[in-house]
Amino acid sequence: MRDFSDDHRWLSLNTATVRKQGDLTQIIDACARHGIRAIDPWRDQVAAVGLDRAARAVRDAGLELSGYCRGGMFASDAARRGEVRDDNRRCVDEAKALGAPCIVLVVGGLPQYSRPGSVVSKDIAAARAQVDDGIAGMLDYARQANMPLAIEPLHPAYAADRACVNTTKQALDICNRLDPARSGALGVALDVYHIWWDPEVLAQIERAGKDRLLAFHVCDWMVPTRDILNDRGMMGDGVIDIKSLRAAVEAVGFAGYSEIEIFSNDWWTKSMDEVLRTCIERHRTVV
Amino acid sequence: MRDFSDDHRWLSLNTATVRKQGDLTQIIDACARHGIRAIDPWRDQVAAVGLDRAARAVRDAGLELSGYCRGGMFASDAARRGEVRDDNRRCVDEAKALGAPCIVLVVGGLPQYSRPGSVVSKDIAAARAQVDDGIAGMLDYARQANMPLAIEPLHPAYAADRACVNTTKQALDICNRLDPARSGALGVALDVYHIWWDPEVLAQIERAGKDRLLAFHVCDWMVPTRDILNDRGMMGDGVIDIKSLRAAVEAVGFAGYSEIEIFSNDWWTKSMDEVLRTCIERHRTVV
Repeated sequence: MRDFSDDHRWLSLNTATVRKQGDLTQIIDACARHGIRAIDPWRDQVAAVGLDRAARAVRDAGLELSGYCRGGMFASDAARRGEVRDDNRRCVDEAKALGAPCIVLVVGGLPQYSRPGSVVSKDIAAARAQVDDGIAGMLDYARQANMPLAIEPLHPAYAADRACVNTTKQALDICNRLDPARSGALGVALDVYHIWWDPEVLAQIERAGKDRLLAFHVCDWMVPTRDILNDRGMMGDGVIDIKSLRAAVEAVGFAGYSEIEIFSNDWWTKSMDEVLRTCIERHRTVV
Repeated sequence: MRDFSDDHRWLSLNTATVRKQGDLTQIIDACARHGIRAIDPWRDQVAAVGLDRAARAVRDAGLELSGYCRGGMFASDAARRGEVRDDNRRCVDEAKALGAPCIVLVVGGLPQYSRPGSVVSKDIAAARAQVDDGIAGMLDYARQANMPLAIEPLHPAYAADRACVNTTKQALDICNRLDPARSGALGVALDVYHIWWDPEVLAQIERAGKDRLLAFHVCDWMVPTRDILNDRGMMGDGVIDIKSLRAAVEAVGFAGYSEIEIFSNDWWTKSMDEVLRTCIERHRTVV
């Protein structure tokens, strides 16, 4: 297991962590000030400053990307299938322009939440079937662009509205169905927030192996959780044994970034510099 | 699948649903008014009116019980092991006095939440091992009293603080380890709120079979969920396909009560009669 106590070479910042403190160019400047070498930007943050300007800012700062957030939201009614396809193709093109190593897929939940305006449904099995089909379609396009897709299983609390892929096993089953050759084109993004509770998580990490582990995200689970979406804690403030999970992914060969992705009404109120300083300190002591 | 559209013979009321509207004797009176034939009371509600008085009120009203809530909270530090054991033995004695068909086990999460004052730990695997041991110990006592134990897997959102048994598979694995003969002494309580998201739920219900299915609870998952603990919705107000889950348990032979268990800041503000009327109507139309 790599020793992070002395430096933060392998810290990446998911830019949602400080999305309320500045735009993407300001976040990139702050990363430069703090010696942060990699980011994972969100599409809306890229769009807000313009794709060309975002790509130039990343390049000029000498930053790497650890991913691009996010493709997905596959379930919809028939009228929106074209929208889903085109939206995800644009995502691939943007990821390519930004030099991302993979796209993080938040696959979406029931159609009415995944693509608002779609027909109301309670059929989660049907949504899951659409997700399979949606990933298969996107994968064809992404392969041509040589852009890997990383399915992110989300915590079951988000099954209805954000992602109906809720366990590492489920995500890996999709990978095996759509990419049985383990070509590198399809894998998983594992966020400790979403997977820490799973009694099978260590076995599934081993099953994933290096070639399916495309990204590793950290934050913490707060007790109590005061907001189901926006109370993801700073590493060390909650109950997740983060080091054990990092040890597990590294034991199968993962050697990429530890990406900090915090959505928190608390941390969004602090200054960008305070957040980044704390991220670096906790990366060294807790991650 | 039984037809509930015409009567509510198989509706049971978990008394937490109206815990803020009255004490247990008042809830029992209200059930009589509404023709509700069964309840599942909580230990604190029984204690508040006294065990003898509660047992008499149940008997006098001709009510059945569909369970007794709750045993468990097993993980603790060594100093509290005796407290855990004695507490759960008392729970068995009370359930017996009340004529309950089973005890619902909320197994507890990490020791500091399960038994406050215990040492702080992030080791969920250790907590799970303690849960196994705790159930094994309680089972010895419960068998002598002929009181079945029903492990309730709770939604992964409660893994840290309420129950580290989070899937039906995990609960059934414990049953198989501790009661391989499927003697009837150990089984599961399945609440749609906790299991609806699980991609394996239908296969696991089939695996459970009639002899492991000791209780079936209903309510609904709200989107958005505004309070992680106290925003369990009324059946029909959320996204769960309740009928499909009831069909699955009935397909393997479950023929017991459909127990309504709602924890909701909204429903606790309405009158007892309004809540019970709505429960009955939704039981007929949605469950």
